[in-house]
Amino acid sequence: MNPATAWNFAAGPARLPDAVLERARDGLFVRGADGASALERPFTGDAFRATLHSARERLAQLLELPAGYRVLFLAGGAMQQFALVPMNLLGGAQRAAYADSGYWAQRAIAEARRYCEVVAAPGFAGAAPLAAPPAGPWDLPADCAYCHITPNETVDGLAYPALPDTGEVPLVADATSCLLTAPLDLARFGLLYASAQKNLGVAGLCVLVVRADLLERAAPAVPAALSYRRQVEADSCLNTPPTLAIHLAGLVFDWIAESGGLAAMGAANRRKAATLYAAIDGSGGFYRAPVAAAHRSPVNVRFQLADEALVEPFLAAAASRGLHNLRGHRQVGGLRASLYNAMPQAGADALAGFMADFARRRG
Amino acid sequence: MNPATAWNFAAGPARLPDAVLERARDGLFVRGADGASALERPFTGDAFRATLHSARERLAQLLELPAGYRVLFLAGGAMQQFALVPMNLLGGAQRAAYADSGYWAQRAIAEARRYCEVVAAPGFAGAAPLAAPPAGPWDLPADCAYCHITPNETVDGLAYPALPDTGEVPLVADATSCLLTAPLDLARFGLLYASAQKNLGVAGLCVLVVRADLLERAAPAVPAALSYRRQVEADSCLNTPPTLAIHLAGLVFDWIAESGGLAAMGAANRRKAATLYAAIDGSGGFYRAPVAAAHRSPVNVRFQLADEALVEPFLAAAASRGLHNLRGHRQVGGLRASLYNAMPQAGADALAGFMADFARRRG
Repeated sequence: MNPATAWNFAAGPARLPDAVLERARDGLFVRGADGASALERPFTGDAFRATLHSARERLAQLLELPAGYRVLFLAGGAMQQFALVPMNLLGGAQRAAYADSGYWAQRAIAEARRYCEVVAAPGFAGAAPLAAPPAGPWDLPADCAYCHITPNETVDGLAYPALPDTGEVPLVADATSCLLTAPLDLARFGLLYASAQKNLGVAGLCVLVVRADLLERAAPAVPAALSYRRQVEADSCLNTPPTLAIHLAGLVFDWIAESGGLAAMGAANRRKAATLYAAIDGSGGFYRAPVAAAHRSPVNVRFQLADEALVEPFLAAAASRGLHNLRGHRQVGGLRASLYNAMPQAGADALAGFMADFARRRG
Repeated sequence: MNPATAWNFAAGPARLPDAVLERARDGLFVRGADGASALERPFTGDAFRATLHSARERLAQLLELPAGYRVLFLAGGAMQQFALVPMNLLGGAQRAAYADSGYWAQRAIAEARRYCEVVAAPGFAGAAPLAAPPAGPWDLPADCAYCHITPNETVDGLAYPALPDTGEVPLVADATSCLLTAPLDLARFGLLYASAQKNLGVAGLCVLVVRADLLERAAPAVPAALSYRRQVEADSCLNTPPTLAIHLAGLVFDWIAESGGLAAMGAANRRKAATLYAAIDGSGGFYRAPVAAAHRSPVNVRFQLADEALVEPFLAAAASRGLHNLRGHRQVGGLRASLYNAMPQAGADALAGFMADFARRRG
């Protein structure tokens, strides 16, 4: 097998852009005239602060960040935000709305229940074909501190075709697997967060975008280092931030900008996804996608084999052709190909070609 | 200025061993036969789990970890442990003891007060010459859930000459700037934690060692991803851990083992520190160390100029000789040279030589 033609379809940590890998290797581990590499410099120094500000500025440009929003770079992943969102945003409220759209929404709900009463926003059916919660205005109690959604369900392979209208209740999103994969109307959100290991770089960093007026709601029990307000006041540097991960995120943002920005990412991601969904839908039932067509994720393509006994032979044959990490999440089984920004069309083409070949041989 | 002879004395993020920088650059950013580099592999896969287990095994060997202790690799820094220690360890108790030894102990105390009553353990005088809290048995109320110390004060340049005896009250330590810098009697501790950016790798990772019987005390409000118990049960993988930082920590642990382990680190650190303290004490009062001799940190050498007006000229002249990041912490001023494991004796020698030269020219 030739590694030059091997493709990694992992759901995260996931493939990084080639240019980011190369620039990180060539740039971050080399000492400069100050005797330090990027990893070794104080987070209070001018060099790191310039990196941090440049990363934030680039991200703001990519997102067309509206006035009145703040960007945070915090250590850790999205899952700890399942607790930190209620701790930071409940304020005096006793409850918040959560939309159940699949595996990660349910994880967020389970954690939120430890901090508040969870009001069910319009949910999904849970039966095939899977679909996102219905669009249209959601009628939510006014005393909900916020309404939490998971616009792309990484495990279920499901994405919201459109954002719900939650009226006066601020919309909060776990955007871990979709942030920067397509243009986004940020003004619709009160808060969104995404861990970095899918489209923003490496594990250990969480990016948050928050409307400034929501920062005053933090509960007394929020650890200082995890208080959105205190970290905004401290420019994400109340304590030592994950400097290497922020450097890498900056390289990813640069690469996205050079590659045409979010519109280009969105178009490329739709095309890759279309390649795979066509391979599934055109297989005469050999492969099946469990998600309704309009609700299929453009970045986590989930599919099944009509004959489940072929899952292991499929994975083994795919690996022998250089196609890796295609096993579905253990909670749902089956197969999944993650096609984040860094996956070229050639990767999707190679997988689609293999799928057709496998179906011919084993169908 | 020649970068090959430049030295970085930053307090953290700090210098990494040359071998770690090289191995990271050459090893972590190169894709293998699976189409993925170390950064891009799933944290649930065999490759990362092998890295995690190998890092933990190596750390346990270095520390001669006693039976009944668990090692955790968590995202984030030490400062969030200032909140998470009380959240995880108070159990039903209403108070905990804290020893005030300087800047970081005071930060830990301020955060702990948000979660419990803080009982003052024997404190330090706060006047020059600074000294660690007195040794000998500490008489602590039995209802203290634990006693927290900061055995090396990074900002103050102060270190405990010996660990206190806290009787039945479990000893908890913020060991951020001293873990792995010398042999340590782990059996004396109930819990210790250290963020990685001084002696364990890069910012964004916190290593904890905890006695298993303390894991049952977590408060209901601990975020799941930050619960010591739940992360122990999940092998530090309840959520995506900071995989790149763990890879780098593993490289650091390998380097320490190859270099002779903690006894060799301790001897080398003492020698480097002796070089600088001799330069200070032998300067005829031109330089002064504000810490009592027996309480001086072997890794954070803090000093002052008798003529404070010479601080800026000293820093400028040092930088022109390739000696960087010698400014003291903003809270205490003066100068500081951090000499963690990765700083060779040649760095300490270069600084001592410059200090003598500067004293001759400006004294």
